[in-house]
Amino acid sequence: MPGERMAAEMAAQPEVLAGLAARRVEISAAIGAVAPDDMSGVVLIARGSSDHAAVYGRYVLQLATGRPVMLAAPSLHTLYRSSMHCPGFLAVAVSQSGRTPEIISVLQSYVDAGAAGIAITNDPQSPLAETAGATIELRAGEELAVPATKTFTAQLAAFALLAETVGRIQWTGDDWERLPEMVSRTLDDQTSPARVATLLADASGLISVGRGFMYSVALESALKLKETTSLLAQGYSAADLRHGPVAVIERDFPVLAFWVRGPAARDMQDLVGWLASEREARTFVATDESHADLPLPENVVEALAPIPAAVRAQQVSYELALLRGMDPDAPQGLTKVTPTT
Amino acid sequence: MPGERMAAEMAAQPEVLAGLAARRVEISAAIGAVAPDDMSGVVLIARGSSDHAAVYGRYVLQLATGRPVMLAAPSLHTLYRSSMHCPGFLAVAVSQSGRTPEIISVLQSYVDAGAAGIAITNDPQSPLAETAGATIELRAGEELAVPATKTFTAQLAAFALLAETVGRIQWTGDDWERLPEMVSRTLDDQTSPARVATLLADASGLISVGRGFMYSVALESALKLKETTSLLAQGYSAADLRHGPVAVIERDFPVLAFWVRGPAARDMQDLVGWLASEREARTFVATDESHADLPLPENVVEALAPIPAAVRAQQVSYELALLRGMDPDAPQGLTKVTPTT
Repeated sequence: MPGERMAAEMAAQPEVLAGLAARRVEISAAIGAVAPDDMSGVVLIARGSSDHAAVYGRYVLQLATGRPVMLAAPSLHTLYRSSMHCPGFLAVAVSQSGRTPEIISVLQSYVDAGAAGIAITNDPQSPLAETAGATIELRAGEELAVPATKTFTAQLAAFALLAETVGRIQWTGDDWERLPEMVSRTLDDQTSPARVATLLADASGLISVGRGFMYSVALESALKLKETTSLLAQGYSAADLRHGPVAVIERDFPVLAFWVRGPAARDMQDLVGWLASEREARTFVATDESHADLPLPENVVEALAPIPAAVRAQQVSYELALLRGMDPDAPQGLTKVTPTT
Repeated sequence: MPGERMAAEMAAQPEVLAGLAARRVEISAAIGAVAPDDMSGVVLIARGSSDHAAVYGRYVLQLATGRPVMLAAPSLHTLYRSSMHCPGFLAVAVSQSGRTPEIISVLQSYVDAGAAGIAITNDPQSPLAETAGATIELRAGEELAVPATKTFTAQLAAFALLAETVGRIQWTGDDWERLPEMVSRTLDDQTSPARVATLLADASGLISVGRGFMYSVALESALKLKETTSLLAQGYSAADLRHGPVAVIERDFPVLAFWVRGPAARDMQDLVGWLASEREARTFVATDESHADLPLPENVVEALAPIPAAVRAQQVSYELALLRGMDPDAPQGLTKVTPTT
């Protein structure tokens, strides 16, 4: 049946997240054993949807540690053989399979340059895990549908767990305990995403937008929509959208916006109001406020809200693919592991 | 006349670049006076097209210095009040006017956290220049058209000059001397971009792609096309494009690819061949090899090639806007300085 794998993998998310939350102490001990005491900075190594998880990782780790956090440019190492020197850095590589040659080789470059290596992967026996000093094992299980779902939300949780270990954070064990149930309730509501998908049935393009923690979800939702529906979707931060790309937003152009209560909320409300009134965009809003097109759990802590928000993006992609007669499990022209040189 | 400002500003580029090249020693001395001797890393602060110049800056600076180079996430500072500690870092802020409040405030945060501040701007009396310890003055002159052109290529040159001062580079003074003439010859050929624009007349979407140094040009060309023609254009690195977004490329979908001879060339040739044969994309190629749709100067050093390549993107955007009856100088809904909070 089209989409049955993606549906099953989406449904597994509460259990995967509960599994990670239950291993908080164990994961923290493994990371604590290799992380430098006085960290200079953090380098994140990823591609594709893992790269969007790393955009979240950048926020959560920089806020927690007060140290610069950067996303690596893999080709600097694989093509240009950049020779690095970075003692005191933490290098965190993210790969579902742990077998993407490019990611392994870039992590090795940073470890050779003096950084402490951490792997975030499903497979603790993978070459990536062997290259790292410590591994956060996702235990998300094999992913058969091409669009990453449970791996992505597990990667977000892994970055939050890493931030707990190496810095100061704003959430507690209670927030972790509530999270699987929140995701479960989000998954149970299939009515809202189906309604949004119906309204997007004829769209040829879409812009998704978020700010702060939710920027990662804006990027990931655009990728999910592109992968599953071939919709020309593009993700932006609210600030970048105002700097030029807003020119493509004409009457009825669909915009999908993500936020929850917190420092980014007012700016997002202003942006969505302006897009609707001045550009006559068709806005769809995923938020914990009332009048959401895609409701997010009330009382979710802002730093963990990208997890249920990513689920909303998965649901819309899944519903829209089916509506368009496509198989969300196996989008045309895509394969699961894409080695790059 | 529609587009006359953009045309005049594009035409000014050889002179602006010659001016920067002529001040190499002076600029180097100013930066050398404030840059840390043993640098831990570099943070780049920018938005919009300046952010695309910073993507180039990341490549050229990391290759030259062997230190991690990161793009700052401004909202971490302006919204979330991230408290930072980064002695030994160089913080480089890029803003045409030097008056974007967000960029000034983020540079101030990094300077307060112990970093040495550098401003890249047109205005050495601007608040941004006052916040920095040293300024690379672009002297690109006022930019009246909304799409940044001469400021962007001047910013690329400024990053290359910064890399010369703080690291080891692959080009010489001769390359700088040849650059203005190369850009001038590129500007003189208006036939190739006009032909590409004609073939794009009916396109509703486009993907631009580059790798390594040219990734910045892929991003910037997509922004220029969006700004001037409302085309839903999106820029990717070759590696990221293969990881999912390729799903939107169907028969006749236009792809604009940038490369010159060097480590990224083979991968780009493979990608373009594959997109044409397997996805039946309509590919347009800007390269120094033969059979280019948009020829780039022969013998240009790879690290400086993004400058003439960016000119090619400007030309196509300009021609396509006119062809579509739009004014490239004043795209709908955009203003020049966009303060973000």
